[in-house]
Amino acid sequence: MILMRSITDEKFEKLLKFLQEEKIDALLITDNEDSKNINLQYLTGHPMDGMAIILESGESALIPWDVPLALKEAQVDEIINPVNYKYNWNEAIKEYLTTHIKKSTINLAVTNNFPYATVVRMEETISNIKFYREIPKITRFIEGMRATKSMREIELLRKAARIATETVQDIRHFLSNATEETEKDLDFYVQKQMAQKGAEDLAFPTLVGNSNRAHMLHCHPWASNEKLALPGLGLIDFGAKYKGYNSDVTVPFSFGGLNETQQKMHELTFKAYQAAVDMLEIGVPLWKVHKTAEDILKDGGYEMPYALGHGLGLTVHDAPFLSRKPQNEYSLKFWKEITLENGMVFTIEPGAYQKGMGGHRLENDIAIVNGKVEVLTKSEFIQV
Amino acid sequence: MILMRSITDEKFEKLLKFLQEEKIDALLITDNEDSKNINLQYLTGHPMDGMAIILESGESALIPWDVPLALKEAQVDEIINPVNYKYNWNEAIKEYLTTHIKKSTINLAVTNNFPYATVVRMEETISNIKFYREIPKITRFIEGMRATKSMREIELLRKAARIATETVQDIRHFLSNATEETEKDLDFYVQKQMAQKGAEDLAFPTLVGNSNRAHMLHCHPWASNEKLALPGLGLIDFGAKYKGYNSDVTVPFSFGGLNETQQKMHELTFKAYQAAVDMLEIGVPLWKVHKTAEDILKDGGYEMPYALGHGLGLTVHDAPFLSRKPQNEYSLKFWKEITLENGMVFTIEPGAYQKGMGGHRLENDIAIVNGKVEVLTKSEFIQV
Repeated sequence: MILMRSITDEKFEKLLKFLQEEKIDALLITDNEDSKNINLQYLTGHPMDGMAIILESGESALIPWDVPLALKEAQVDEIINPVNYKYNWNEAIKEYLTTHIKKSTINLAVTNNFPYATVVRMEETISNIKFYREIPKITRFIEGMRATKSMREIELLRKAARIATETVQDIRHFLSNATEETEKDLDFYVQKQMAQKGAEDLAFPTLVGNSNRAHMLHCHPWASNEKLALPGLGLIDFGAKYKGYNSDVTVPFSFGGLNETQQKMHELTFKAYQAAVDMLEIGVPLWKVHKTAEDILKDGGYEMPYALGHGLGLTVHDAPFLSRKPQNEYSLKFWKEITLENGMVFTIEPGAYQKGMGGHRLENDIAIVNGKVEVLTKSEFIQV
Repeated sequence: MILMRSITDEKFEKLLKFLQEEKIDALLITDNEDSKNINLQYLTGHPMDGMAIILESGESALIPWDVPLALKEAQVDEIINPVNYKYNWNEAIKEYLTTHIKKSTINLAVTNNFPYATVVRMEETISNIKFYREIPKITRFIEGMRATKSMREIELLRKAARIATETVQDIRHFLSNATEETEKDLDFYVQKQMAQKGAEDLAFPTLVGNSNRAHMLHCHPWASNEKLALPGLGLIDFGAKYKGYNSDVTVPFSFGGLNETQQKMHELTFKAYQAAVDMLEIGVPLWKVHKTAEDILKDGGYEMPYALGHGLGLTVHDAPFLSRKPQNEYSLKFWKEITLENGMVFTIEPGAYQKGMGGHRLENDIAIVNGKVEVLTKSEFIQV
């Protein structure tokens, strides 16, 4: 059997040990249009739309919407066809749980965004189940597993990164020739270039801001009809999806020369970026990397109202997060200091933003492989 | 105060009456990246990312991520800044509930995909709350409110529809000139045309299938590098978003003449479409409209493995649904026959699919205004 799920056997064993220690008989993962959960794909290989049951023994089952897709992709012991239960998923789960777990009380666990409605329905129809209450604990545990990637995953992330890097040069070409083109035109152009290079999709909707709009964190290009080539600092934030894995790059650019403020924004951003990259070594606490970059920007008079970086994997916002310590007690209770480890793949993306001047952000993707920093993408400041 | 929320005062009163009858003190709605819930926008006007509390008295509050956006868009009595609670939302909700509801037990209701983790956290920190268990009942009730649109909503849906209709003629132009272009090229072209006509976004990711791929229900154009202009039946399924409201159209096309099978697929589809539209009148049960179309296709030897139509509004899959009666008892318990009403806006989209022949689907958007059928879009079969 070719293992197509992303989780390694070693990590799967760790998960089972966690379930056993917490006295959980089965973990339930559900993913649908309204309630996305990438752990379905991570733990079973099935890309979306279905419910997985993983017993503490390691035995697993999947109830998918798309049975042919599951037969192709899912790495589980049993695929349960919902048609056999007239699409009453609850009946299918009930039968599976009661035939596989012979205990007076069945302890079930779910992760963060599992719907309360499903819990209620199960409680009302399966008399002897009990739900594990420490949901942040198990959620963080699985997120933590996803935070370090296997070599197979890193290879796919490299491929997604390569598509983005090649597209940086296409962007240079586009900007060099831009006259009346709008921000949207750059969006469409970049989509097309990435599709031609083998991206299966965008990693996320591209952001493009000319110097009027780039100071805003979410400069969705469809919200504007302005032309791109305005004097000042603009940016494009984009990424490719390749076999489920994502890249994420921001290219800062300018049309015409920079004034003193803009020059300072540029220098601070690049200084913060370099300082962050320079301190990456196994064992460094990630909140300190964030703080180093944030302090450089702050000393220069700029706020960075977001995390310096985030993990990349099957989602564009995977663990680990390079962010400040949480401010409130409840979050602190479940927080623990994360330090840099082999296999982590994440963005570094400091920036300086000022209305009237524009927005400036440099973002690359970084992998830690065999204790070394590997910068997967090659973004650069493009001056036209 | 200009009412920017989509719900009318009349419907809001109906919601309060429902809460009172069910002895619910407050309704909680949450929307975030992982757990989308369009009811946040529908009930408060705030487009996304936040938690709303609606008391049975009608008083309401919102805890938004983006406070400036809430100040601009949200129609609530109070906007609670999460910064004041160091982003501990639970504290903010606790304070609001305990100061506004002076009862020994506070009865709370949530809708379908509200996360279990949030329920647990609230139960563990707010001692006197109790969650309403009949979640399908309240979910269907609110969906039912959304199923009929106000004149303001219909006007926005007409605008979204107009963008799609104008784009049908652009598609004709593209197809007439297509030689080596791929399915992706048509995707990018249609995006660009709709953006130029004022769409704020795609209603959903466009599907494009040439005759090799159009028999598949989800022919994502990025999954293919094939050229579009192959003999046989292809289709494009696309829509525009305008001020939050969505259109959804499928244009069937062919390159070259049709063989006997393809001609039959075309005729059955158009016959099923027309039969469905012809029976639309106030009071007709929607499952019967589905069945009429399905039976025509079945008699011709084709299965239609999806619902004939779905509502359009702030989502592309709003109520009402034109689908068969549910097959299992649990779903039947909460099911009730929905009949055609004034203000309903929905798609009609029968199709015939056969590997080797292609896929053929006609889809238009329909509104029921003053008892009359108004076909909002003008899709057509484009033969090149």
